[in-house]
Amino acid sequence: MSLPARVRIVEVGPRDGLQNEPRTVPVQIRAELVRRLADAGLAAVEAGSFVSPRWVPQMADTEAVLAALPPRPGVRYPVLVPNEKGLERALAAGAREIAVFAAASETFSRRNINCTVDESLARFAPVVARARAAGLAVRGYVSCVLGCPYEGAVAPEAVVRVAAALHAMGCYEISLGDTIGVGTPGRARALVKAVAREVPVGQLAVHFHDTYGQALANIYAVLELGVSVVDSAVGGLGGCPYAPGAAGNVATEDVLYLLHGLGIETGVDLDAVVDTAWWIAAALERAPASRVAHALRRRRG
Amino acid sequence: MSLPARVRIVEVGPRDGLQNEPRTVPVQIRAELVRRLADAGLAAVEAGSFVSPRWVPQMADTEAVLAALPPRPGVRYPVLVPNEKGLERALAAGAREIAVFAAASETFSRRNINCTVDESLARFAPVVARARAAGLAVRGYVSCVLGCPYEGAVAPEAVVRVAAALHAMGCYEISLGDTIGVGTPGRARALVKAVAREVPVGQLAVHFHDTYGQALANIYAVLELGVSVVDSAVGGLGGCPYAPGAAGNVATEDVLYLLHGLGIETGVDLDAVVDTAWWIAAALERAPASRVAHALRRRRG
Repeated sequence: MSLPARVRIVEVGPRDGLQNEPRTVPVQIRAELVRRLADAGLAAVEAGSFVSPRWVPQMADTEAVLAALPPRPGVRYPVLVPNEKGLERALAAGAREIAVFAAASETFSRRNINCTVDESLARFAPVVARARAAGLAVRGYVSCVLGCPYEGAVAPEAVVRVAAALHAMGCYEISLGDTIGVGTPGRARALVKAVAREVPVGQLAVHFHDTYGQALANIYAVLELGVSVVDSAVGGLGGCPYAPGAAGNVATEDVLYLLHGLGIETGVDLDAVVDTAWWIAAALERAPASRVAHALRRRRG
Repeated sequence: MSLPARVRIVEVGPRDGLQNEPRTVPVQIRAELVRRLADAGLAAVEAGSFVSPRWVPQMADTEAVLAALPPRPGVRYPVLVPNEKGLERALAAGAREIAVFAAASETFSRRNINCTVDESLARFAPVVARARAAGLAVRGYVSCVLGCPYEGAVAPEAVVRVAAALHAMGCYEISLGDTIGVGTPGRARALVKAVAREVPVGQLAVHFHDTYGQALANIYAVLELGVSVVDSAVGGLGGCPYAPGAAGNVATEDVLYLLHGLGIETGVDLDAVVDTAWWIAAALERAPASRVAHALRRRRG
């Protein structure tokens, strides 16, 4: 039980965050958000997704976001890709990394992407193969790893199966997502232990939503198992817990405060992330949904 | 590293929570709050304090709160007592349990109670002795255990000294308070380990504020050391983290969600606590400052 010396944060605010905000922000703001986050020291910033703008209008014109980002050594801008058509858009836009996503829950898979889990895996296999042949890195997401809004509790075995399949396809990292934020540390640890029997723990990331306030406790619990990659979103983008119906990603600044307090290196400037949280919150005409953004601003006076 | 099978929650909302709210609620509401919390299964509910109403108007007339509470087997209603005069009021009001408080930081002690740490301990010794002679149980609080607003970091040795002194005086339990919420799990564990060398871990409680969102991670980390008593406040009373200048106690409902998810028994009905969080928030004309209160209300629809 020793904590990692260094943790890599995968910043998902400009994608998983903004796509779940009721308000759509213009492309220039989206690109500026990515730039500010990279300036803060975040070496992986998810820049957008190539899903249909009919379904996710918040992510329309991701091509323009990528085009506005200057290449930057050591910084990656992954984009979400749902299918072959999305991959074509990503390749045409010059993306260097993509992410694919499958669910651990059958009902969620059917309702979210209109196919079974196995169908989704079969759909991704050629996408991943083609992306890798073109030299792209591919990250895999598994959603609903600790619970499903339709099915309730999700068995670790269901997660293991999907994670192992994405790993076998060639995803360099598998991000385990507690999409509805219901998990607590004991279940999070049991899940990571189960998946780590099939996918090396060094290739696992965790992706918590803070719906029930459990995200940091869960992160701390799995750090003890050797997990060293954490997804988070500046300002807790993706929903304000103080508005009905919404609940966002765990906030990058809350995660940084935890990690730095534990003496874990991240290479990220907490103050710069807090500034960015207030900046994007202003664009969304609300306050950041994180404790640290508020506490540090108060402390600065 | 095994978690306790059962955790006792000490509900501090009606005292530590309400005394830090900008809005004062009437005595009937304060008593009704205590009653609802006891109905929810909370076996220790701090009912008020006997400090001067000049300094803490929110806690005026704590006598009337106690008078409005029917005796209830198995439920304790501790009240905070700052000095002999406070003890006299507590005895006259029929209190069965009191709490005394000292700081681990000299500057905080001087600014908060206008005396040195040693002076405060000397002041409490006769109060504790007299209370115990009268058959009352006495709980001790140590504040600023992980940080001081004036001095910054606080050394564990300073906390150990104060905790050991309160223990030696006859306090049956010592509650370690991260008053400004700056702690992270590694420092929380180091502190508990240091104090547990002088005071048995079974006589320690932890009292976190959620200023930086770290409270649940800290609680999880010290549960692993055998701590089994947690202070919390319904609805995160004591400040809304989304209002400037305020930051409250960790919310009882967030703690319960964590503990129940870990399979730890509390004897407390989470839904009843969430209902109470919304009820007292309405009296304060704001929303509860907890994730779980919002998430569970959404889920109920």
